[in-house]
Amino acid sequence: MYTPSVRDLIEELGRLPGIGPRSAQRIAFYLLRSERTDVYRLADAIRRAKDQATFCEVCFNFSEGPICEICEDPTRDRSVICVVEEPKDVVALERTKEYKGLYHVLQGALNPIEGIGPDRIKVKELLKRLTDATIIEVILCTNPNIEGEATAMYLARQLQDSGITVTRIASGLPVGGDLDYADELTIGRALSGRRLL
Amino acid sequence: MYTPSVRDLIEELGRLPGIGPRSAQRIAFYLLRSERTDVYRLADAIRRAKDQATFCEVCFNFSEGPICEICEDPTRDRSVICVVEEPKDVVALERTKEYKGLYHVLQGALNPIEGIGPDRIKVKELLKRLTDATIIEVILCTNPNIEGEATAMYLARQLQDSGITVTRIASGLPVGGDLDYADELTIGRALSGRRLL
Repeated sequence: MYTPSVRDLIEELGRLPGIGPRSAQRIAFYLLRSERTDVYRLADAIRRAKDQATFCEVCFNFSEGPICEICEDPTRDRSVICVVEEPKDVVALERTKEYKGLYHVLQGALNPIEGIGPDRIKVKELLKRLTDATIIEVILCTNPNIEGEATAMYLARQLQDSGITVTRIASGLPVGGDLDYADELTIGRALSGRRLL
Repeated sequence: MYTPSVRDLIEELGRLPGIGPRSAQRIAFYLLRSERTDVYRLADAIRRAKDQATFCEVCFNFSEGPICEICEDPTRDRSVICVVEEPKDVVALERTKEYKGLYHVLQGALNPIEGIGPDRIKVKELLKRLTDATIIEVILCTNPNIEGEATAMYLARQLQDSGITVTRIASGLPVGGDLDYADELTIGRALSGRRLL
């Protein structure tokens, strides 16, 4: 019913994660009402990112070359690897300015229901990296949800005889949050993870 | 923190309606993991739609030329105009195969809170079209929500002395729906709009 070019646009937009047919229509309508230069800038940004950005061969974070800036940075502590699910988690951790080690981006989490097993994420590549004797600690920073926990448990089991210290990022109450706003799972986790003062 | 091309991509995606920073990151991550040809196809679809599609000079629906296919179709009934908010509403109405008249796409609805007055939508253009004596009925098909109702009321008032029959699409229970799932406003509207059998 739409003109061919609009139909194609809606179809392509609808393939993106989290964008259903209604959002795709809304975005198409928005783009057709926007300035031509703005629309071209979006199209060009998509092409350029695909042309220039790829994934680091070592840690699988976004990278503009074969090895990313963090992996190439000589000031980073090469004895610790922080394992995360996605590139955005690296950004979140870097923002804290607390962590000076390296990363490993799994590019997903285990999810048996959706058929995502260890071979579908960068587990093999992590285990290979860990054969390097410089590494003394692995911090499992997958998300504190079912998939992230399962992934952390799986990796911990794989590494139990490796001699590498395996730690898990703490779960608990968010700083600045209110106790009565927190869900019971978070409060339960915060209690069981209590520390001596 | 992201590489420049990824940062640009996330920024451009984040400008789209309904896409926040987290969705933009997720889409960028998805695109960088997709096949190059798929990503190029999206970028090209965006450019092509902007190059080829525009809005019909008469009804303001999407069009690949100055006048859209519906306005140019000699078999359509030129005495009726159905007024809708967006191109997607035309698609929804055409899908019914019930309506054979013309359309007028307002490209929005009145919304005083967001500062959208009659001059921000295609009201002036509609009133100009209606000076044509061939038009005997205007069906107001704006959405049955606050903005759509306000727009319909506004247009009805503008047209009250025009001699044109002004009708409003019926509100009521959706066909196939359950009475006890419908909200009270819909039931109230369905009751007040009851018909003799």
